Amino acid sequence: MKVLIVHAHPEPKSFTAALRDQAVATLEAQGHEVQVSDLYAMNWNPVASADDFSSRENPEYLVYALEQRLGVKSQSLAPDIRQELDKLLWADLLILNFPIFWFSAPAMLKGWIDRVLVSGICYGGKRFYDQGGLSGKKALVTVTLGGREHMFGDGAIHGPLEDMLRPILRGTLAYVGFDVLEPFVAWHVPYISDEARKEFLTSYQQRLEHLSDDQPMQFPRLAQFDEALYPLPV
Amino acid sequence: MKVLIVHAHPEPKSFTAALRDQAVATLEAQGHEVQVSDLYAMNWNPVASADDFSSRENPEYLVYALEQRLGVKSQSLAPDIRQELDKLLWADLLILNFPIFWFSAPAMLKGWIDRVLVSGICYGGKRFYDQGGLSGKKALVTVTLGGREHMFGDGAIHGPLEDMLRPILRGTLAYVGFDVLEPFVAWHVPYISDEARKEFLTSYQQRLEHLSDDQPMQFPRLAQFDEALYPLPV
Repeated sequence: MKVLIVHAHPEPKSFTAALRDQAVATLEAQGHEVQVSDLYAMNWNPVASADDFSSRENPEYLVYALEQRLGVKSQSLAPDIRQELDKLLWADLLILNFPIFWFSAPAMLKGWIDRVLVSGICYGGKRFYDQGGLSGKKALVTVTLGGREHMFGDGAIHGPLEDMLRPILRGTLAYVGFDVLEPFVAWHVPYISDEARKEFLTSYQQRLEHLSDDQPMQFPRLAQFDEALYPLPV
Repeated sequence: MKVLIVHAHPEPKSFTAALRDQAVATLEAQGHEVQVSDLYAMNWNPVASADDFSSRENPEYLVYALEQRLGVKSQSLAPDIRQELDKLLWADLLILNFPIFWFSAPAMLKGWIDRVLVSGICYGGKRFYDQGGLSGKKALVTVTLGGREHMFGDGAIHGPLEDMLRPILRGTLAYVGFDVLEPFVAWHVPYISDEARKEFLTSYQQRLEHLSDDQPMQFPRLAQFDEALYPLPV
């Protein structure tokens, strides 16, 4: 398997980075090929803008997704985007590895999503959800957070973590066609012992060693909707 | 009322910008004071990093929220953050005005949230949700998107838009104490006529003129949970 890990954490020595390193070691030991995009180390530019296109279909008025579509054809996408896109297309498994900031991804990673998941390749027209441009690939979200596990779930103060992560799990990864696996979550990280952190690393290793057994999460399929995307009778 | 509009769109002539201008005109005509943070025009830096603190409690290891807390006290927050924070604290109403990118905010705006909603002022310890540091203020999310209205809601292909916006509405704005109003949504914007756009502007104007009648959305209250944040019996 070819694996791309996209990592975004402002502290190079973070536990989130230890999870990234655990993933690299575990997956390589299994014979997989691994590439890492360490967005902070790369000084990644997260801002989607007109500068992302060396030439524009419409220089007067920017419709970002439209310019992405044309940029793919005319090879006018910025080199940093094209490089990440090539890694993404190379990979069979994408791991997004990040600390939860405001119940979602840090801006650094959000900007990777905004710029790299280009229209025309990753999605477009009726190519989304199970028909998405990246269908056949798997995605795993690996997160660290400050909250405790009992603060998430039905009836818990923040509700289910999967509901908070819905724009990423469903609105992004499932949307472009990935088989999305259940997130791996390390809870309460800033406050726990080294021992507890080691237990998370061990359980992550075990998870990764058996990833092929994982059943993907369930999301809508286009066949459940008509041409105008109204739901069909069940 | 004092109003801060935080606007993030890569195209200065966008319809999203027209909504911003409509809000400024409508609110000023009612006698409110309005400030606008136009993040693209300001060349806002969306990346939370060690550079956000002129001095650090722990220069060896960055825990971002902890340094925010200490940075507030020692006045070591970066000037761009402090300036936005002062606008936020000045405002009675915050409007986040943006195009939906991947069912959430563009990275530019996510980075305003990551950097400006500092721990120690906006939240911290048991000060969150109805006890949040910004309680007493109102927040409105105004968004443009490409999808049609029938693609959102129960049973619709993307589910309710409010569920996709949960990390922002609940996990961010309600979390820091805002009374969060129902989002204002302009659907299918890239594809609609000038006439249809004008109708959205008119309906936005009417919404803003009667904003004080709006009932805030319902979110958890800390009194529903015990000291360890387990739910109390109903």
